[in-house]
Amino acid sequence: MTEVVDRSGGSGRTVNTKTGPNAGTTSGTGTSAGSRGGAQPAVDVAALGEQLLGKWADVRRQSRGLAGEPELHKTEGLTHTEHRTRVFGQLKYLVDHNAVHRAFPAELNGADDHGGNVAGFEELVTADPSLQIKAGVQWGLFGSAVMHLGTAEHHAKWLPGIMSLEIPGCFAMTETGHGSDVASIATTATFDEATGEFVIHTPFRAAWKDYTGNAANDGLGAVVFAQLVTKGVNHGVHAFYVDLRDPDTKEFLPGIGGEDDGVKGGLNGIDNGRLHFNNVRIPRTNLLNRYGDVTADGTYSSPIASPGRRFFTMLGTLVQGRVSLDGAAVAVSKIALAAAIRYATERRQFNASSHTDEEVLLDYQRHQRRLFTRLATTYAAGFAHEQLLQKFDDVFSGAHDTDEDRQDLETLAAALKPLSTWHALDTLQECREACGGAGFLIENRFASLRADMDVYVTFEGDNTVLLQLVAKRLLADYAKEFRNVDFGVLARYVVTQATGVAIHRTGLRQVAQFVADTGSVQKAALALRDEEGQRALLTDRVQTMVSEVGAALKGAGKLPLEKGAALFNQHQNELIDAAQAHAELLQWEAFTDALREVSDPGTKVVLTWLRDLFGLSLIEKNLAWYLMNGRLSMQRARTVGDYINRLLVKIRPHALDLVDAFGYGEEHIRAAIATGDEKTRQDEARAHYRAQRASGNAPVDEKVLLARTAIAARGRRN
Amino acid sequence: MTEVVDRSGGSGRTVNTKTGPNAGTTSGTGTSAGSRGGAQPAVDVAALGEQLLGKWADVRRQSRGLAGEPELHKTEGLTHTEHRTRVFGQLKYLVDHNAVHRAFPAELNGADDHGGNVAGFEELVTADPSLQIKAGVQWGLFGSAVMHLGTAEHHAKWLPGIMSLEIPGCFAMTETGHGSDVASIATTATFDEATGEFVIHTPFRAAWKDYTGNAANDGLGAVVFAQLVTKGVNHGVHAFYVDLRDPDTKEFLPGIGGEDDGVKGGLNGIDNGRLHFNNVRIPRTNLLNRYGDVTADGTYSSPIASPGRRFFTMLGTLVQGRVSLDGAAVAVSKIALAAAIRYATERRQFNASSHTDEEVLLDYQRHQRRLFTRLATTYAAGFAHEQLLQKFDDVFSGAHDTDEDRQDLETLAAALKPLSTWHALDTLQECREACGGAGFLIENRFASLRADMDVYVTFEGDNTVLLQLVAKRLLADYAKEFRNVDFGVLARYVVTQATGVAIHRTGLRQVAQFVADTGSVQKAALALRDEEGQRALLTDRVQTMVSEVGAALKGAGKLPLEKGAALFNQHQNELIDAAQAHAELLQWEAFTDALREVSDPGTKVVLTWLRDLFGLSLIEKNLAWYLMNGRLSMQRARTVGDYINRLLVKIRPHALDLVDAFGYGEEHIRAAIATGDEKTRQDEARAHYRAQRASGNAPVDEKVLLARTAIAARGRRN
Repeated sequence: MTEVVDRSGGSGRTVNTKTGPNAGTTSGTGTSAGSRGGAQPAVDVAALGEQLLGKWADVRRQSRGLAGEPELHKTEGLTHTEHRTRVFGQLKYLVDHNAVHRAFPAELNGADDHGGNVAGFEELVTADPSLQIKAGVQWGLFGSAVMHLGTAEHHAKWLPGIMSLEIPGCFAMTETGHGSDVASIATTATFDEATGEFVIHTPFRAAWKDYTGNAANDGLGAVVFAQLVTKGVNHGVHAFYVDLRDPDTKEFLPGIGGEDDGVKGGLNGIDNGRLHFNNVRIPRTNLLNRYGDVTADGTYSSPIASPGRRFFTMLGTLVQGRVSLDGAAVAVSKIALAAAIRYATERRQFNASSHTDEEVLLDYQRHQRRLFTRLATTYAAGFAHEQLLQKFDDVFSGAHDTDEDRQDLETLAAALKPLSTWHALDTLQECREACGGAGFLIENRFASLRADMDVYVTFEGDNTVLLQLVAKRLLADYAKEFRNVDFGVLARYVVTQATGVAIHRTGLRQVAQFVADTGSVQKAALALRDEEGQRALLTDRVQTMVSEVGAALKGAGKLPLEKGAALFNQHQNELIDAAQAHAELLQWEAFTDALREVSDPGTKVVLTWLRDLFGLSLIEKNLAWYLMNGRLSMQRARTVGDYINRLLVKIRPHALDLVDAFGYGEEHIRAAIATGDEKTRQDEARAHYRAQRASGNAPVDEKVLLARTAIAARGRRN
Repeated sequence: MTEVVDRSGGSGRTVNTKTGPNAGTTSGTGTSAGSRGGAQPAVDVAALGEQLLGKWADVRRQSRGLAGEPELHKTEGLTHTEHRTRVFGQLKYLVDHNAVHRAFPAELNGADDHGGNVAGFEELVTADPSLQIKAGVQWGLFGSAVMHLGTAEHHAKWLPGIMSLEIPGCFAMTETGHGSDVASIATTATFDEATGEFVIHTPFRAAWKDYTGNAANDGLGAVVFAQLVTKGVNHGVHAFYVDLRDPDTKEFLPGIGGEDDGVKGGLNGIDNGRLHFNNVRIPRTNLLNRYGDVTADGTYSSPIASPGRRFFTMLGTLVQGRVSLDGAAVAVSKIALAAAIRYATERRQFNASSHTDEEVLLDYQRHQRRLFTRLATTYAAGFAHEQLLQKFDDVFSGAHDTDEDRQDLETLAAALKPLSTWHALDTLQECREACGGAGFLIENRFASLRADMDVYVTFEGDNTVLLQLVAKRLLADYAKEFRNVDFGVLARYVVTQATGVAIHRTGLRQVAQFVADTGSVQKAALALRDEEGQRALLTDRVQTMVSEVGAALKGAGKLPLEKGAALFNQHQNELIDAAQAHAELLQWEAFTDALREVSDPGTKVVLTWLRDLFGLSLIEKNLAWYLMNGRLSMQRARTVGDYINRLLVKIRPHALDLVDAFGYGEEHIRAAIATGDEKTRQDEARAHYRAQRASGNAPVDEKVLLARTAIAARGRRN
């Protein structure tokens, strides 16, 4: 593992060089005004940090305190079995420190605090993602299912043991044969009127429960999802409480079997496994019966008449998984950027602008582009997450809990979780590469975190599938709005107030009516560097993409099944792109909303640069679309890249402040290269050469000698 | 780890649907004509496979035979120390099977076969990347350095022990403080005339050798790179043979110390570590003196007068590292795609186009886009690699070994290695996600291979730095060509025959003169689906980008150092983009060259679709550039996406053939999901439901029941 580059010929140095007047200026930690004297705006790190902590700041601080404790940190290099043992012990530690009960009912010593619970849970990711997810399986999935899908009797019977970890349990939903398509799972729960029992059965290999946390070792109980069949009718997917293992011997109970999923790409502190059931009988009352029940004589009843809405409602209680993954992904991106940016302010490589000192990495334009664009996205994703979390709390606290609220929450989570989890992987990888070989060492954590976060992009809803749910919602809202309108007209990329309303009705965000107000996209483009210009461009793109696909799919529902499906498939890629554009707009709006809450003027200036960088980066990424659709002229489009480059230079002096505001300490970042050691090493090296030059004993470079000789020879000739 | 998606409301199914007339048609292994009757072109898998094996087909087959043996396979879940032990044992296995000596001199039982050696080495990656890289450290770096930088005496003394693994050794170049910037390493080798020895010394912490394979445990010897100082003059970086450890006790020799780099993000079968030297004395003759020597009285001499050229020549012998990483990255991409595409032809998810059967994943448009675009790039990278390997063999065999040949080889390797290694990471990740949760299980290998391949993008030259070397070369050639031309004119995006020549003169590829011939880029754009149209667009982009940056940087060399450097930095991002565009063009040209060698008409048709998909994907990725620069009209640009979608449908029936042609067996792919087990599971599930329906005992769906009741009620009312 050796890095080799030749720099012969002398001109190699000129490729790597220094940026403008701010090169080398690094602001210290804390408010950066003092050291610079007013010409530059300064970030109020403390105030910004407080804003970033959001509504549940106290819970986050408390949880960060715990996450900073060495007992909870991931030990690298363990085998997966050792890691599992450690994480199980850490779960007990969380119980002992009252860290995991906030969402549970007050009468069971919980706090009925749903938003706070998720906020606290998210912060655990910095200790060890395995710890976070294993806690999520136990309390966020297994416990939550009993709480939200069960009723009083179930709560009294199982929640205390679940909360105390006396009953480690599984959330047995996914099957080998069905990932994201939960409605098609094949496990059955057939009611036997003769005995008053449900019979849980796995009909074939593809119906084994799979990837189930706690299944391989620890799970004593499980919430098992199965098709509820009674009196010859399948009432769809319901949840059943099933005892899995003997609490003393830890052996599977009769009729139950399974196997270990083995080593995984990450999260090896969790014992994922497979489960299967051979006509396992459970009491009728083990049906978690909040949304559907069966009487002793086998009669099914539900407070929700429509099977579709019932399914949606039952699974809807589980949205918190997606909400918390969104938050955890943002937290990890912050950790990675804090480490990589700190290192880049200390690390020197290649001397371009002077004969003695090498450049600090963060002064290279490409390095700024790699890290600052991701810093901007991380801020956007963080602000969007805070809005999602508040929406989640509104729904689950009952403050705003209509059907529409729940659907909006579902759609918002389905939009944001894909972007933030993909962003976390991208950021971890870019940071790891930006730190070179050092980034690959586990002591610097990028590779470890990346491995653990990998599965976040496909679990709790595959990202690609989630974006299709968002697209479906966008299309449905669009169709509702324009039931009586000629699609052909709309499809001709006409931006009218009406389409603005269509997007507005998704209920997700109050998107601005800039385009409608001004009546001209071209005018908006003139101001692409301004907030309203960015908003107009981003909003217009979503609206146009949705209306284009909507028009193309007009009448698909009336075609024979196979033809309609084929038509949809021809537009699947566009649909997913439209959903992503929508989610990006939501992030941009959240960032922009957050700017309004900043009172310190210096902070506001710098954060506005960062928001502009985010907005312009989105526009640059989709520049072809804006050009193809006549939204930007060739001349204007050519300015986007330059403007981004200028923003990079402006943000450079504030980079450290912007990551310091995340508020994570070394106990969370724990990267050897972000401790100041690099600066010590660089300073030592420079001092060595300085002393050598001062002593007059420094060896003369052969090149210098040759040049001198050549000059002397010329002198003799003349 | 559970995947949840609601599909309530019934319309979810329509988002995931089936593609056109070819949906569900999967060609079998082997020539696919027979089963289809002539309407469809067919791929001659055997002939294509032979072409892909390339010039060193026999060596590859032999090496694949070895790589398929269980003794050489990675065992997952080991600790890093266990893994190291296993890999060291595997190196001995390679020696015993004569697998690693092809490049060494015939008189030492080698074969003087440089191309074949690299070809064979690349194939080992499918067994375990740690094995490949550890072998690369021992024979490709340590052994190669002794062979290429040393002279007869050194060969006789050390090569036999290196070849037999009696002397495991290190290639100690990179330092903690200097990664890719080798010229700046700080370790010194100062000649002491009094004793006739070199004194190897580490002046400060940043000068420790780091990330060095074999350093933590196994290395008994090392080639140490250090600044050679004699008589007060620093002659630049030279290589020295240094004994590191006592062969019996395995303890460091006096003055030498080091530490273990510990667990890494991957490649944990290699014991990377750090080394430092405290005035360690070695005989004068331990200088590997092919390109620079010191007499007993301390007089330095070299066959290469210029220190810059000397440095370039010494490091140039090490280009094979980059060549072989390029090939290994292509091999891994093939393995990943073979597994993911096989799985996608068997896995069913969501039923869209019929009420009973679910869709095969590979019939979804998005899935095709995710996998086929990467399949096309893999073919392109593979063909480009074969050209690189032949160029490498030409130089190292002495067949074509001018200075210019060596520089071209260096530049070509610096262009291709970044693209193929990034592509491997991207492909592994996309394949892992395309396989959902199953993709995350180590038994399916994507995550394991990705972790191991991660460091390929920064070692043997950081990818970003390598692309800057390419850019430097492009600029230099450009400047040479236009020394007397007005840059301003060129910069105005004028495409003339002259600029075509400029690119041609990079010596890398005979790029076509299409633009020059027709005199019109616009005319070329009319034919963007044709070979010449694609070539014109891709070539023009490189030419224009280089000439634009060239014009912007005009005179930078005459500015004061700091200002010149700042000017370069303002264009660093563009420079890297231009280099990447150049490398992509090389891949496209290689693919196009390969088409000419295909004689089977059906294969030619299908491969041409795949080449078009590659070309069009490049154009789509850079569509904004083509629009901004007036190369494509808005109308034409809007057709690119549609055309790509149509190509996906055409390629669909041949997907399995195209991965089968890679020629890897299950012993290389070793992914549980690519064994046919998934098909068995799916067939079992469908048979179950068929039997249930046939029996008349299938439970009725509540939704169906509700619909019937509603109809009956309506009947009663009427």
